Amino acid sequence: MAKVGVLLSGCGVYDGSEIHEAVISLLALNRAGAEVVCMAPDVEQAVVNHLTGEQVDGISRNVLEESARIVRGEISDIAKIKATDIDALFIPGGFGAAKNLCDFAFKGPDCDVQKDVARLIREVVAAKKPLAAVCIAPALVAKVLGAELTPQVTIGSDEGTAEAVSSMGATHVACPVTEFVIDKENKVITSPAYMLAGNISEAAEGIEKTVDALMKMID
Amino acid sequence: MAKVGVLLSGCGVYDGSEIHEAVISLLALNRAGAEVVCMAPDVEQAVVNHLTGEQVDGISRNVLEESARIVRGEISDIAKIKATDIDALFIPGGFGAAKNLCDFAFKGPDCDVQKDVARLIREVVAAKKPLAAVCIAPALVAKVLGAELTPQVTIGSDEGTAEAVSSMGATHVACPVTEFVIDKENKVITSPAYMLAGNISEAAEGIEKTVDALMKMID
Repeated sequence: MAKVGVLLSGCGVYDGSEIHEAVISLLALNRAGAEVVCMAPDVEQAVVNHLTGEQVDGISRNVLEESARIVRGEISDIAKIKATDIDALFIPGGFGAAKNLCDFAFKGPDCDVQKDVARLIREVVAAKKPLAAVCIAPALVAKVLGAELTPQVTIGSDEGTAEAVSSMGATHVACPVTEFVIDKENKVITSPAYMLAGNISEAAEGIEKTVDALMKMID
Repeated sequence: MAKVGVLLSGCGVYDGSEIHEAVISLLALNRAGAEVVCMAPDVEQAVVNHLTGEQVDGISRNVLEESARIVRGEISDIAKIKATDIDALFIPGGFGAAKNLCDFAFKGPDCDVQKDVARLIREVVAAKKPLAAVCIAPALVAKVLGAELTPQVTIGSDEGTAEAVSSMGATHVACPVTEFVIDKENKVITSPAYMLAGNISEAAEGIEKTVDALMKMID
């Protein structure tokens, strides 16, 4: 049974993992026969009130604890996960990928990446294991791999984000929401999901195809 | 386009809506062509750390704000929703259905139901519109409708919970995770979901069939 790491970043589109993307990925991976190894960094995050869209001042939550909500408690600190523990890695989107796994949402191309997130992405790619990322998460992948490996990725069609991705060394390829972009050399698969999706079914179609492509790439 | 109300109870299996159940329902409803009208009560809830499973003392969160995480902010206070606004109602499970929509998790059959939740369930059934509930949510439905309408429902096969459901006036029918129970007279459809599911695919199969049955029952 293939083991696929799923890297979460909290619980909720505006300050964590996009919940639809995460659950659709988990369902598609389970239906494809994969065992998932869910993980998140044990770090603090800012909190956004998802009813108003406004940041809540004066409080924080723990990314690992909030991510645990999406996976019914079955999750590990990413610091304990090595590339040898998994056959592939999947990274859902949501602002958490750009706020908690790195700070791309605040600093753009000059962002810093959480150290274990950067380490695991590098380890997985170096081990020639496939990696998929959707929504804004390809920007994180571009930052980690860009300068050295110039991966082909998509974040959909948003020009500002595409420019930022390119400036980190990746090659951005425009892509519709129901499709994905595959970089065969680096084994990196990306899809726009909610960077473009108008509804949950559109996001699901692209994610399901991405998971299918990821599973086929596992040796 | 059919409008289906989705009643949430927070965000996370141990103190809110079961996230897989909620997202799988939203996806199945969208794929079936329904427009969803998401709602939750504007009340406070206790918080469970989903990494440890332990309640966090001294803090609370707002059920409507946390539920908003599951639906990207597109949600209304249930106090503002009437049965005339929707063609059907769907209630995912998770402990939130038994802690925040009512207090069945603490008081069992003697539980109280949040007033707008009780009102809307009664309105929907009185209007002969279909209602579906999965996981532990059928216990809530049993409490609201039981004495008067003696609905047939399932919570799977857990004997203690089934007895509690029966003692509230409903008729409990044992049901496997991938199936559902339909009470044609009251137009109530129920399925075990994570009361029995061993993995996300099992939960999805029962929920997808439940949504299909619900859509077919809309006039």
